Amino acid sequence: MIVVLKSEATEAQIQHILDKVQKLGLKPHISRGVEKTIIGLIGPEDALQVTPLEIYPGVEKVIPVLSPYRLVSREFKKENSVIRVNDRIAFGDKQVPVIAGPCSIESLEGLRRIAGQVKAAGATALRGGAFKPRTSPYDFQGLGEEGLKYMQAVGKEFGLATVTEVMDTRDVELIGSYVDMFQIGARNMQNFSLLREVGKTHKPVILKRGISATIKEWLMSAEYVLSTGNFNVILCERGIRTFETETRNTLDINAIAVAKQKSHLPVMADPSHATGRWGIVGAAARAALAAGGDGLMIEVHDNPQEAFSDGEQSLLPGNFAGLMRELRRVAEAVDRRI
Amino acid sequence: MIVVLKSEATEAQIQHILDKVQKLGLKPHISRGVEKTIIGLIGPEDALQVTPLEIYPGVEKVIPVLSPYRLVSREFKKENSVIRVNDRIAFGDKQVPVIAGPCSIESLEGLRRIAGQVKAAGATALRGGAFKPRTSPYDFQGLGEEGLKYMQAVGKEFGLATVTEVMDTRDVELIGSYVDMFQIGARNMQNFSLLREVGKTHKPVILKRGISATIKEWLMSAEYVLSTGNFNVILCERGIRTFETETRNTLDINAIAVAKQKSHLPVMADPSHATGRWGIVGAAARAALAAGGDGLMIEVHDNPQEAFSDGEQSLLPGNFAGLMRELRRVAEAVDRRI
Amino acid sequence: MIVVLKSEATEAQIQHILDKVQKLGLKPHISRGVEKTIIGLIGPEDALQVTPLEIYPGVEKVIPVLSPYRLVSREFKKENSVIRVNDRIAFGDKQVPVIAGPCSIESLEGLRRIAGQVKAAGATALRGGAFKPRTSPYDFQGLGEEGLKYMQAVGKEFGLATVTEVMDTRDVELIGSYVDMFQIGARNMQNFSLLREVGKTHKPVILKRGISATIKEWLMSAEYVLSTGNFNVILCERGIRTFETETRNTLDINAIAVAKQKSHLPVMADPSHATGRWGIVGAAARAALAAGGDGLMIEVHDNPQEAFSDGEQSLLPGNFAGLMRELRRVAEAVDRRI
Amino acid sequence: MIVVLKSEATEAQIQHILDKVQKLGLKPHISRGVEKTIIGLIGPEDALQVTPLEIYPGVEKVIPVLSPYRLVSREFKKENSVIRVNDRIAFGDKQVPVIAGPCSIESLEGLRRIAGQVKAAGATALRGGAFKPRTSPYDFQGLGEEGLKYMQAVGKEFGLATVTEVMDTRDVELIGSYVDMFQIGARNMQNFSLLREVGKTHKPVILKRGISATIKEWLMSAEYVLSTGNFNVILCERGIRTFETETRNTLDINAIAVAKQKSHLPVMADPSHATGRWGIVGAAARAALAAGGDGLMIEVHDNPQEAFSDGEQSLLPGNFAGLMRELRRVAEAVDRRI
Repeated sequence: MIVVLKSEATEAQIQHILDKVQKLGLKPHISRGVEKTIIGLIGPEDALQVTPLEIYPGVEKVIPVLSPYRLVSREFKKENSVIRVNDRIAFGDKQVPVIAGPCSIESLEGLRRIAGQVKAAGATALRGGAFKPRTSPYDFQGLGEEGLKYMQAVGKEFGLATVTEVMDTRDVELIGSYVDMFQIGARNMQNFSLLREVGKTHKPVILKRGISATIKEWLMSAEYVLSTGNFNVILCERGIRTFETETRNTLDINAIAVAKQKSHLPVMADPSHATGRWGIVGAAARAALAAGGDGLMIEVHDNPQEAFSDGEQSLLPGNFAGLMRELRRVAEAVDRRI
Repeated sequence: MIVVLKSEATEAQIQHILDKVQKLGLKPHISRGVEKTIIGLIGPEDALQVTPLEIYPGVEKVIPVLSPYRLVSREFKKENSVIRVNDRIAFGDKQVPVIAGPCSIESLEGLRRIAGQVKAAGATALRGGAFKPRTSPYDFQGLGEEGLKYMQAVGKEFGLATVTEVMDTRDVELIGSYVDMFQIGARNMQNFSLLREVGKTHKPVILKRGISATIKEWLMSAEYVLSTGNFNVILCERGIRTFETETRNTLDINAIAVAKQKSHLPVMADPSHATGRWGIVGAAARAALAAGGDGLMIEVHDNPQEAFSDGEQSLLPGNFAGLMRELRRVAEAVDRRI
Repeated sequence: MIVVLKSEATEAQIQHILDKVQKLGLKPHISRGVEKTIIGLIGPEDALQVTPLEIYPGVEKVIPVLSPYRLVSREFKKENSVIRVNDRIAFGDKQVPVIAGPCSIESLEGLRRIAGQVKAAGATALRGGAFKPRTSPYDFQGLGEEGLKYMQAVGKEFGLATVTEVMDTRDVELIGSYVDMFQIGARNMQNFSLLREVGKTHKPVILKRGISATIKEWLMSAEYVLSTGNFNVILCERGIRTFETETRNTLDINAIAVAKQKSHLPVMADPSHATGRWGIVGAAARAALAAGGDGLMIEVHDNPQEAFSDGEQSLLPGNFAGLMRELRRVAEAVDRRI
Repeated sequence: MIVVLKSEATEAQIQHILDKVQKLGLKPHISRGVEKTIIGLIGPEDALQVTPLEIYPGVEKVIPVLSPYRLVSREFKKENSVIRVNDRIAFGDKQVPVIAGPCSIESLEGLRRIAGQVKAAGATALRGGAFKPRTSPYDFQGLGEEGLKYMQAVGKEFGLATVTEVMDTRDVELIGSYVDMFQIGARNMQNFSLLREVGKTHKPVILKRGISATIKEWLMSAEYVLSTGNFNVILCERGIRTFETETRNTLDINAIAVAKQKSHLPVMADPSHATGRWGIVGAAARAALAAGGDGLMIEVHDNPQEAFSDGEQSLLPGNFAGLMRELRRVAEAVDRRI
């Protein structure tokens, strides 16, 4: 922690700060400059989390030096984490998993049909919403437990790992009993109760980045899960909100590269939500892979004109198969496999 | 709903769309222009919520005409709603309530001291967090039920209405048994399960705007509460995230005026979070009031240097009293009272 | 300047940095912490502007301590600057000037009519565009010099100070010969050649904030003008771009308060562009004044349905007169005068 | 153009609008819905650019149907444009040009050294700033004409096409006499006088996207150049401003794909500015190429520790050569060549 003092800070004010930080067990180092005086604080910075030095008289600003996350950081663990879901699928490995499926689970038959098609094209996991976070209370809210049953049955039938979104702390146990991985959606990235609750299950968690979250906030949310003892977190870049209105969101390709530098956790991408337009999902998916992404989640529907949600961004099974062929070539060019 | 067709749309494609919308019970009106053809759809637009016309062949874009919220809109209710909390405090009236208190409840004694001071300065309600949404799992997370007990006791003692944040559907009942109003924080604005759960209680709900939410999304979240039958919602502008790093957030003064045009619900402001710097809280509070704000929520702490959270943005009781004197003059200038 | 080292920085790397900064005439202070080592640099920071210490081996980050602007800062000049345009109008004084007029100058007769009306309502300066920055090359681009002549004649007739936008270095001399103040528009806030060119004239300059500029960047642009010796700069908050689509821009009320803390220059607001909707211009204008704004610029047109530009945000003369009555009351409540 | 009326619009108001648009030569089509009435306008929409129908009594909103750009659109020209700079380099072709070089031209010797290295690694064009847009008036502003002379000499010596930024209308002729391509920087994307001036030269123009510009605004700025008769425009995505502070800007990969759908012009990327950190330039460059980018511009410096500007984001020649090898593999995977 570094404390920068105002030019007009008095000796009494400086002494007051020194007394305070020493009482907190920190060792101060003063550098007196021509224009500014600076105090460097050595010791357990955590002690300062409840003491707002910013408002001490004479203080201009306080600059943290240590990153606020620990368990998720590269400093805590140098090598890449590989999150294994089952014996066929793992994130962070040379083999890059592709999760595909409809936005919402609509029927057993529909889910089976799509699962068969994405499996044939090379997907290794199945997505599908049973509890849907919808902006409007009047929109389709998902099939609930019925949908989870379809998910489990279809996943088993096709040998696909399964993932679905959890939105309510009260649903964690139920959902955990049906699927292989939890998804925390962008809107719940800072639903801290929910992060703790999925943490306790020790199942893999795909943690989507909040729509306007910084990388630091995203990693702090992952830290909530890791701090419960569950290290099975896969970060998922799903597009951030920008001024652009041509696309639903903006895929932040930089964030994939930065998150992988800062953290040992695998980082995947969701090009469907990150674009919101099926016509550019392919470009975004290729880019995410080329930038080092450790997984992809892509919406596929065989009749998007009748999809209950997100039809605009769903690929037809045929287009998905074509994209998988392109992705295999890009994967090879960056020493990965799909 | 208006459907704009691509210049190259074929007759067969147009017919396919006409068939579809007629099947949904809508009446289409075609206007054939030199460059573009447009189809206006008359009838129940809700029918289209699960049909993504955007991806029908030949369609360029689809433009909704009706606003997606109903119960919160001015069209539903012309006159301003007045949300009465008890016989001394109401939002949306000529008298503008000021809610004040510490960010976190830290102790019974501390809360009593601050409550006495803000009451003396003219506040009519007391704020204080018992369950705190903190970015870091290692930060102070609140006193929980113990804090609620302090809140209830102190509110009673000073005749102040009480408000605290609820973050978890499982806590709604407990919190509701202690305080007069719920607060839904910015991070939970789209926690739809929580919105429904507080809706069911029929207690007043202060709904903070999400950190990067549009006004429409904010009103849609209010619609979730109203759709449960609970019309006691007070919208609270608490600052949005922008590129500015000098302030924690940016008070969106336009949003206060626009939300009051679009909706009959009262709109208040939280200048403490909207600025994050105690030195400009006063300017922001005066501005919110001058722009038509129906209430203010201001953080006050008598020892911000030792506050467990948000010390940087808390006013000292003396500064708060001074601000209240300024606010009374501004209120009068816009025909309100504080 | 503070240099934070990586945990794994070697002694050789540290020595390399120490050598470099000492060669630049700076005095380093090392604080060795348990996790991180920090080097504080004392001396002329300007020496570091061309040396990217960030990329020296072993460096994690570099944190500047001094603000990058000098002449515009409160540290350079403690008391508020008052920018006098002529003997009747000054910015930064108790009396708050209101600049009003049409977006574009359309005709001599039209300008005269509007000028008479805004003068009667209490405006002290006249605005009007002769060279218009339009997003489309096919939109009306302004009357050019003809418009400047109308401006000069009408300003003289009604005793109103005049202001118009300059967009091209080649037009500075011409425009300066007709009007009392230059306006630098948001799109040109970082047109550094233009800033220098208007600086050389020593006429008052209204410097609008760029659409996504930080306060620091805005002040740096003002520094360009001041560094030529022209201290007559009035900062103008005109709304920033945010995600909100209900309004054209978002008035950043915090920025008015912060800019006045950081700088001695007067800070005014343009509620017309900051909202883009005439129905909320009044709320925004009252807010800007209540927050401490030192001036207002408001678009007025007596036939907005036929205005060549920005009709959506122009007030009718009658509405403007009503707003001026409201503003007088708010001004009084904050110890100003209109 | 579609005009949506308020529910309470009167017949007289509707008639007033119909009269107006018919006078403008447009043919109205009315659709009367249960809740809303809509008027579709057929005919030359340009006529409406100076008539703000939004503020006609009874109007709720006005929705444009045609895109505001013409010459840059895919509707104007279906096939991709190939912009040829000389007989060895063209943008929009199977072969993807890579422009490399230092941020600023610092000396003849330095430029020669770097040019030789990037040429050897496979670059086909040389970049380097002679007139630098710097946020601070106290930072290095470039060598001016001296730098242009170095550029011309070195480009000739190594057979590299040359590009440099132009910031002032008065410099267009001078710069055009030394280099092969103009660059319009992000800060000047809406410097409309400058766009027209470079248009007149008919030289190729690399048009960088403004830091918070929408794709539509970017294309409108290109339209300014094309409307002068100069069709040699290459769009360059260089990162947009977002909330992220870990990176200088955010590469908008979606924008590359969308701009290529909307326009026939080639779209390149500048991963150096789009990230601001040399450690992730490679990931961003690979992503831009995989997404369909038609060119890359990369900063290279052989002694970034002493670079006059942007040292943080410059690659060392060795790293650049390594990246070129990676890019060749990715190019091949998407059927391009580098």
